[in-house]
Parts: sequence; C-alpha cells; structure tokens
Amino acid sequence: MRQQETPSYDPAVNDASNITGQLAQLLDAGGVISDPERIAPMQRDHRALYRGHALAVLAPADTAAVTRVLAFCNEHRIGVVPQGGNTSYCGGATPDASSSQVLLSLARLNRIRGIDAANYTITAEAGCILAKLQAAAAEADRYLPLSLGSEGSCMLGGNLSTNAGGLNVIRYGMARELVLGLEVVLADGRVLETLTGLRKDNTGYDIRSLFLGAEGTLGVITAACIKLYPALRSFATAFVAVRDPAAAVSLLGALREASGDCVSSFELIPRIGVEMTTRHIPGVVDPLAAPSDWYVLCELSTSRANEPLDALLEQVLAKAHEDGWVQDAGVAQNLREREAFWRLRESIPEAQRKDGASLKHDISVPVSQVPRFIEVAGGWVAHHVPQGVLIAYGHLGDGNLHFNVNQRPGTDPVVFRSRQPALQRAIHDLVAEMGGSFSAEHGIGQLKVAELERYAQPAELAAMRSIKQALDPNGILNPGKVLRGSAL
Amino acid sequence: MRQQETPSYDPAVNDASNITGQLAQLLDAGGVISDPERIAPMQRDHRALYRGHALAVLAPADTAAVTRVLAFCNEHRIGVVPQGGNTSYCGGATPDASSSQVLLSLARLNRIRGIDAANYTITAEAGCILAKLQAAAAEADRYLPLSLGSEGSCMLGGNLSTNAGGLNVIRYGMARELVLGLEVVLADGRVLETLTGLRKDNTGYDIRSLFLGAEGTLGVITAACIKLYPALRSFATAFVAVRDPAAAVSLLGALREASGDCVSSFELIPRIGVEMTTRHIPGVVDPLAAPSDWYVLCELSTSRANEPLDALLEQVLAKAHEDGWVQDAGVAQNLREREAFWRLRESIPEAQRKDGASLKHDISVPVSQVPRFIEVAGGWVAHHVPQGVLIAYGHLGDGNLHFNVNQRPGTDPVVFRSRQPALQRAIHDLVAEMGGSFSAEHGIGQLKVAELERYAQPAELAAMRSIKQALDPNGILNPGKVLRGSAL
Repeated sequence: MRQQETPSYDPAVNDASNITGQLAQLLDAGGVISDPERIAPMQRDHRALYRGHALAVLAPADTAAVTRVLAFCNEHRIGVVPQGGNTSYCGGATPDASSSQVLLSLARLNRIRGIDAANYTITAEAGCILAKLQAAAAEADRYLPLSLGSEGSCMLGGNLSTNAGGLNVIRYGMARELVLGLEVVLADGRVLETLTGLRKDNTGYDIRSLFLGAEGTLGVITAACIKLYPALRSFATAFVAVRDPAAAVSLLGALREASGDCVSSFELIPRIGVEMTTRHIPGVVDPLAAPSDWYVLCELSTSRANEPLDALLEQVLAKAHEDGWVQDAGVAQNLREREAFWRLRESIPEAQRKDGASLKHDISVPVSQVPRFIEVAGGWVAHHVPQGVLIAYGHLGDGNLHFNVNQRPGTDPVVFRSRQPALQRAIHDLVAEMGGSFSAEHGIGQLKVAELERYAQPAELAAMRSIKQALDPNGILNPGKVLRGSAL
Repeated sequence: MRQQETPSYDPAVNDASNITGQLAQLLDAGGVISDPERIAPMQRDHRALYRGHALAVLAPADTAAVTRVLAFCNEHRIGVVPQGGNTSYCGGATPDASSSQVLLSLARLNRIRGIDAANYTITAEAGCILAKLQAAAAEADRYLPLSLGSEGSCMLGGNLSTNAGGLNVIRYGMARELVLGLEVVLADGRVLETLTGLRKDNTGYDIRSLFLGAEGTLGVITAACIKLYPALRSFATAFVAVRDPAAAVSLLGALREASGDCVSSFELIPRIGVEMTTRHIPGVVDPLAAPSDWYVLCELSTSRANEPLDALLEQVLAKAHEDGWVQDAGVAQNLREREAFWRLRESIPEAQRKDGASLKHDISVPVSQVPRFIEVAGGWVAHHVPQGVLIAYGHLGDGNLHFNVNQRPGTDPVVFRSRQPALQRAIHDLVAEMGGSFSAEHGIGQLKVAELERYAQPAELAAMRSIKQALDPNGILNPGKVLRGSAL
C-alpha cells in the first residue's frame, strides 16, 4: 500500500492573497465570507475543543461552484474543510490553525429539490437544516425519521457525512440506512450523482456508502435523496422505573414483539440523570413518585390513526411489573406529559454542562452486553475516579451509551481532569474487549484519530488508507480528519 | 487512475499439476474436489448461459483455509472464483474456460456461529443455505426477513455478495441493510472481521458495504452477522384485481399508511402471469372470478399475536374499490389459500420457462414511475417485437420489475431471439432515461459487464476501478466479473 504523500503548494499560487483572489473569481458575490464576526464561530468547533484559522472561508451557491472550488484546490494542493451546521462533537468541521486550508461552508446549498410522495422520498441539498426537512416531509404527509438534539441547526450534509444516529435508530436505522442516493463532488471536481430514488440497484460497488460517515474526507456531499415513511398518527410514551439495565433489555424485547416492532425510541436514564435535570433545568420534574436507580423512556408510534398504543403499552408494562422488571411507570396522558418526559431526556447534556466538568465517551456494545458493560465499566469508574460520578444514559435500543463521568461537587477540578487519559483508556479497552465501538455515533473528526489507529484492525486501517488514496490522491479533502498523515 | 494490469503466471508454478498439488497441501482431505460428476454442475451457471473449466475446484473447511488459498493465489497471480449455491442469474460464480482459475466453493463453511436473541442477531458462515438460517432464527423465536425463490439452495455468502433482494425488500430492505458485520478474506489473505453485532459504529469508512454487492471481486465473505426481527405471528394476504399499475401504486401508499407500515410484500402481476401459471403449473388456479389486466399480491404481517390484519386489509380494499382502484379482491381465509396465492406468484418463472423462450430484464425505476415505464416500454415491445408477449411482474413496492418478453406461440424462434439486442437496448435506454437501474437485484456477473460500462457515469466507473485496484491490486478476485480488464 502506498503511503499518503503530504502535498506541497504549487509555487505559482503560493501567495495567500493570490489564492484567495483566484478562489473568489470562481464564486458569486456571496461566495467569500470575510466579515470577522461571521468567520469567528465557523473557525471554532461546537464544543470549543478546537480553534482554527482558514486561508479563506467560502460559501458556494450551488454544486457547480463546489466543483470549481474543488478542482482548483486539487490542482493547487490546497486542503478543503467542508462545514455544515458546525455541530460536530469531534472537531470534524474545524480547519487547522495553519491559515492554509479553505473552509467550505455548504450553508447556501439549502434548496429542497423535490418530494416524491408516491416514491416516499425527499431530495434536498447539503445545507438544508434538518428540522426544515422534517417539516417539509410533514407537509407532504410523510415522515422523515432522522432526529437528533441539534436538529434545529445541523445540516443534512453533515448528518450524512457523519452517518448521524439520534433518537429513532432502533426503528429506522442510522442516517446511512435512510439514503437512497447522493450527489457528491469528488476531490478533483467531478460529480457522482445518484439522486433518482431507487430502492434497488445492483450495478457495481456501493461507492455511495463510502461517503456516508467519511466526514468529508472522500468527497463533498452536495445533495441527497432520502427515504420517507408514512406520517405518524398515533403515539404512546412512557417513563418507566426499571429494576436494572438487564430488565430494560428484557422490556425492550417484550415491547418490540407485542407492538409489532413499533418501538421508535428506547432510552436508558440513570437516577442521576433525573436528579441533575430536575436540579438544573427549570420546569423539569421527576415524573415518578419514588426514586429508582434506572429508568427507561420509551415511545411507540405508528401511522395508523386512532391506534390505542397507550393501552398496549400499559399492558406490556403491567406484565413486566408482574415479572419484576418494572417497578413503576407513567404513561403520558397527553401531549404535554409526553413533552415533559422528552424534555427531561433531552436536557441531560445541558444539565451536565451546568453541573460542571465532564469526561465523555460515546460508546456502543451489542444490546445484550449493555448490562454487563455498565456493571464492569461502572465498577472501574467508582474505584479509579472517586472525583467523578457516572452518568451512563442513551440509546439502549441500539446498544449506544453516552458513558459520561461528571466531576463530583467539591473535588479538585485539576485532579478530576487528570484522570481523563486513564479513564478513556479503560473504557475504550473494555469496549473493545466486548466487541464494541469507541465512537458509536459521533465519528472520528480530529478528536479520535489516535483512538481509531489504536482500535481498528490493521487490515481495516490499511483498507481505509488505500481507499483514501484511491479517491483523494492529493489528500486535499478534510486533511487530518479520520486518518492521520493526510495533513495539508 | 492506473489501469488494471493483467497479471501473468509466476513461472515457478506455471505448471498446472504443480499448482494444484501446492493448493492441495493448503487444505484438508475434503478440500480438493476432483470427482467429475460433482465438478460438472459447479462449472456451469444456473441458467446455462456459461460453461467454464477451472484449474482446480477447492472447498476449504474454514476461514483459515480460505486465507491460505487466497494468500497463495495472490502470490502466484491465480484467479479465484468464489461460489456459494451457484444460483447467480448473471454467471457471477462461473469460472472462465481457460483452466487457469481456481473455483472456490464456500459450501463447507456452513456453521451457524451463534444467535443472540436479545441483540436480535444471527452470526453464520458463508456456506449456510438461506432456508437453514431462516429456520434457525425461527427456532429462536426470531425472524430473518431475507427471502427469495432460491432460498432452498442459495447460500448466505452469495446472498450478501450479490446484495440479494427478494420478497420482503419493501419492509426490511436489501441484504445489505440486514448486515451488521462481516468476516471477509481480502485478496492477500488478510482477514477483516466485524462480527460483533453492533447497531451503531462510526469509526471510519464503511468498508464493509463495499463487499456487499461486489460479487466476490473485492474480497471473499466467509461469515456475517445479520439482523433479526421479532417473529411474525399475524398475517393477511390478498390477491387483488387492480384497475391499472397507477392504481396499484395508490393502493400501496394507502396500505402502508393504514397498516402502520406492515406491508411486507407487494407484487404486481399481469393477466398473462395468471394465464401462464394456470396453464403450465399443476394446481394453480385463477383466484378471482373475472379476469383483470393487472393484479397485486400483497401481504401484511406483524409480530403482534391475534392481530386482525385481514379485517384491516379488507377495509382498505373496500375503500380502494369505492375509489375505483380495485375491481375485485380475495383475502386469504386460511393458510391454504395464502399458499395458493403465493404459489401462483412464485411459479411465474417456471411457467415462463415451460411456455417457451424468453428475453429477460431485471429493472427498477422509482416506484412513482412504474406506471409510466410499463406504458412506454410496453408500447415499444408491442410495436417492435410482434413475436413476443410482455410479462412485466415483480416487486412493485421496490420499483423492481422483471420485465420479460416471451415468445408468442407459433412465431419463428430465430426471428424472436434476433430481437434481443434491440429490445435490451430500448428497455435499458428507457430505464436510464427514467433514472432507473438495468440490474435491480441480479447484479452484473459476466452477463452485464458491458451494460455497466455503457450506463454507469464515467466518474462512478473510474471510482469503482480505483477501488478494485486498491483492494485487489493483482486482480485475482473473480476476474472479469463486474469490471472488465481484470481477467487473469
């Protein structure tokens, strides 16, 4: 396998203002962003882990303009960092500080190109904000299941480039599984286009899937054709006190079976999640009378109108209570109660931030292994990080936990933070031992490049590098993200 | 992009018996098949389009033996043609006639490695017959949705290597969407293994998906971890006379919505399909009293026990009758009637064979475009192939039609067959114009290599070639399949 070469500048364009001037000529009036107040937040990541400085911040108006920028940058060996809503958790969309990379905002590619209700598809551009697409689908009496905390600001291109997960994965799969077609600009400016919304097409290799989750390192997604589903008309939502995580896994199986696989969310929440949100977030109250070590927030949904899903849910919960899995449960009686349950779940990250420093891990294991993982990893934390308190919550239905450790009040923040490397190593080693993933839904970005090198199989890493070399031989696309040794 | 080189033999092993002897030493006693009666059917394809002659026919007992064979063949530039149940429709598993390629049967890798009911997964080897896996899942009270005509003889490795479709795609997706992990032996014998059954794992490129549908040209799949679903407990099946294909599309939407997306099959059948099967297949009868130009065989299913899906189906059909979409319908009253409906649908290919010569096309278009496609393409056939009669049937729910033309009784077979090139060109051109696929579920194999070259976008074909080069630099894997210029 050939080693990725670090490209050097073409001397003819090695002068920054000269390059910027040439790039500006490829774009319309709004194509170069120079206002420092607009640029500043684009050069920082969402979590304030990274701060970069770009050679130029570009915002092409359409796919043709993206192709011109990439062809130019490829010819002149200039790194290109694509950015959508800038909500990466791993610094995936932040340029480095070298002032030599172009920051490429896709925000102006924000058109919905069409909805084909009979084909159950929506075709939209990379810069569309996810919530806008959900609303457009709803207007056509269809349902777009991709849903995550940042849906009010994240953009489709980023969702697909990071293969976003979110709240409905158990029923509808990751972002990758929702994609029927893509328009991608390759490193050299050529366009791959498969937007026609086919559900079956076995004509050669699944090139498309490579771009989904590649974080902009193999091509720039400019548009996509996404699967839609029948609009949902009936819901049932419960906040359930469960005996332990094993009981939660059993309840999940029972609910899937009894509901005809209508479980659209199944979230595990520890007691401390309830305590933190009720303490820090105005309006959040504990839904149940007596405290419990573990809770599940679950939701059933269907496109059938007037379906008595709440009765079905109550039946399953009553049986689970008899079986000892469930201690108590509240089934939402109206929209307000449903929203209150969800508000508790969705404000855990904010409550964590308000509570103080935290060390985060976005891991997954097989669903059946979640209880053992929590027991063993939780034991490690209790023993080795006495300054911290564990908050393990998240998408149990997908085996995906946000396994976070918050600083215990009154402990030394420096000592707490100093435990980070050992904690991360222990957690990720245990994840690897149990066949899990050290990055279940947040991706690699620049934050987890070393973890990927450590935990990927050598043959897998070599295959990734050879594919990077094949599709981006000059290494201009999002250099240094996902794979090292591709810095420009 | 570098051109794929045609490798030449290593002189040291250029003697066939020498090579065979060395290969035999890599395997156990059952590892070399030499009985001519066993070899003969393995060297022909299922449809008798191709007849090859292999250098050796090998049947390794396990993954380690596969790695030894591939490492040897890669070193000595010997082509390897993987074969499972040998049910390819495109000659994808048949060696060429040069006596220089190794035929690699995966049939002895036939172990089910495990079922994790709580994780809803089954892990099994490439040589497992699909029906055996379905039965094993059912024994664990789980459902494996992959289902196709050849399930009694096709094998998992082939199903995945061809990204098989089948009867349940509308609800559960293609084979690719059911795969959570793979064990793949790469061209040089290294093993990529991701069998742990994770539902979320965003750690780098989706290498895995490349092997699904690559027809053994990028690696040899030796095992996989497949998603399971709750066992199905209630069904409703109807044979419906519809006004026309557009009415069928409308009925599909209405059924998806009213049933809570419980439609697991939705098959379009033309009148001639009913006529041919009742004429040629003993026991098949026309389910409805009056003839209709078009029919739909649809099935709802759910894991809910005692769910009155038939009442729901009858309700939707009654409303569709009022709306003029449906002329008549029979809802199966018992298992025997359900099986009779399915027998009619599934015996269409056999009836076609008994009826005479046929010219076949496995195409897809967006679901919403199916009516227009049938009208325009059907018109072309009527006008330009008067010797033929159109039988367009198949998976309407996925936009996938088996668009076949049978020889009209009493016409000249030579004249009929001579129309094949013009017919195929017209059909595939129209498919391309409507954004469709010339190979919806059967793949490329050796039959459709030229079609892929004609209809793929140049950038797409170039990307495929560069990926082939990256993962199989010596071009030893299934040479000449999918991509040309890789013949060994």
